[in-house]
Amino acid sequence: MSVLESLNWRYATKRMTGEKVPQQKIESILEAARLAPTSSGLQPFTILSISDRELLGKIRPIAHNQPQITEASHLLVFAAWDDVTPEKIDKVFEQIIRERKLPADSLDNYKNSLKARFGSLSREERYQSAARQAYIAFGVAIVAAAEQKVDATPMEGFKPAELDELLGLREKGLRSVTLLALGYRDAANDALASQKKVRRPIGELVIEL
Amino acid sequence: MSVLESLNWRYATKRMTGEKVPQQKIESILEAARLAPTSSGLQPFTILSISDRELLGKIRPIAHNQPQITEASHLLVFAAWDDVTPEKIDKVFEQIIRERKLPADSLDNYKNSLKARFGSLSREERYQSAARQAYIAFGVAIVAAAEQKVDATPMEGFKPAELDELLGLREKGLRSVTLLALGYRDAANDALASQKKVRRPIGELVIEL
Repeated sequence: MSVLESLNWRYATKRMTGEKVPQQKIESILEAARLAPTSSGLQPFTILSISDRELLGKIRPIAHNQPQITEASHLLVFAAWDDVTPEKIDKVFEQIIRERKLPADSLDNYKNSLKARFGSLSREERYQSAARQAYIAFGVAIVAAAEQKVDATPMEGFKPAELDELLGLREKGLRSVTLLALGYRDAANDALASQKKVRRPIGELVIEL
Repeated sequence: MSVLESLNWRYATKRMTGEKVPQQKIESILEAARLAPTSSGLQPFTILSISDRELLGKIRPIAHNQPQITEASHLLVFAAWDDVTPEKIDKVFEQIIRERKLPADSLDNYKNSLKARFGSLSREERYQSAARQAYIAFGVAIVAAAEQKVDATPMEGFKPAELDELLGLREKGLRSVTLLALGYRDAANDALASQKKVRRPIGELVIEL
């Protein structure tokens, strides 16, 4: 399927069948998220891929009891770094230098200017910047799921602080930002399955200059 | 090309040839961005598609003089709503009700709870929420461009306040959040064209539970 066909096929699935998504498809969706570009290549987030039924049962009340949480095969939790520190930046650049076989100091100017830029922001601003990068991967994962004919529900309706607590994210330096439930639509029980996709007209969304 | 093939083909192109991207491809990329999901379907952003050479020349110094700005065929500016107001929410729901031929008051409960949720946030938080939605469309547009074999450079390195001023965005209730330069790679002059794509290993990026 082309990207446009995939996007037209998908919708925000409210009811799922509980059927398991094959591991290979899950891996393909996660690989797409991994390949998504991020600012300076930092990839400042972790994705939790949750299929443990008991854990999903505990997450459901934190997400306004939405049934997709437990009817999904897997729930992806996109969790952004709660801070972008010099140490984390160093680690990313060490990997780039190693994998590209560059001289050890060849990226120092760029790296130092990046550290200075983040250093001039507040911790909250650094977290917000990391959260935005997670949304790029989130968008890419949504397209990748649809291409695999896997339904995906983007979900912001949950209590991040409670989910962070349940999953022990703050100790890992992470904050949950958004969820993607992966599974298969239960079209017979999902009123949204048959409804028209509504989007702002292109002439209103886009300004050409 | 599959999504994974597209993502492996693309890279953050630093030098472009200046060759024009056919209008049909630009429209396809914008259509993908339009179809991207957003929280409650608000699509709280505008995309400016800029191909005017003089205007691109004025934008380049605002974006640290990066050559892609003027070597691109089109520059997409993703600009988020600077606020999510009850009036804007009403307008979105009017369209949904009209297009889905629903009773006029059928979404009132949902709409009112949405207004209450945004009302409980600060204006800055509402803007941050809108900006994140723009990043979903940004991620989708990046995949769509690669599928069309159009190079795309995601660019956060610019001065948003200066760009807002140049484009008159604040008067439109918008704030620029990120840029996507669209064009064709000048591989002979782009050192990055031949370098290995570096990403965090999947076992480090993903936690399975």
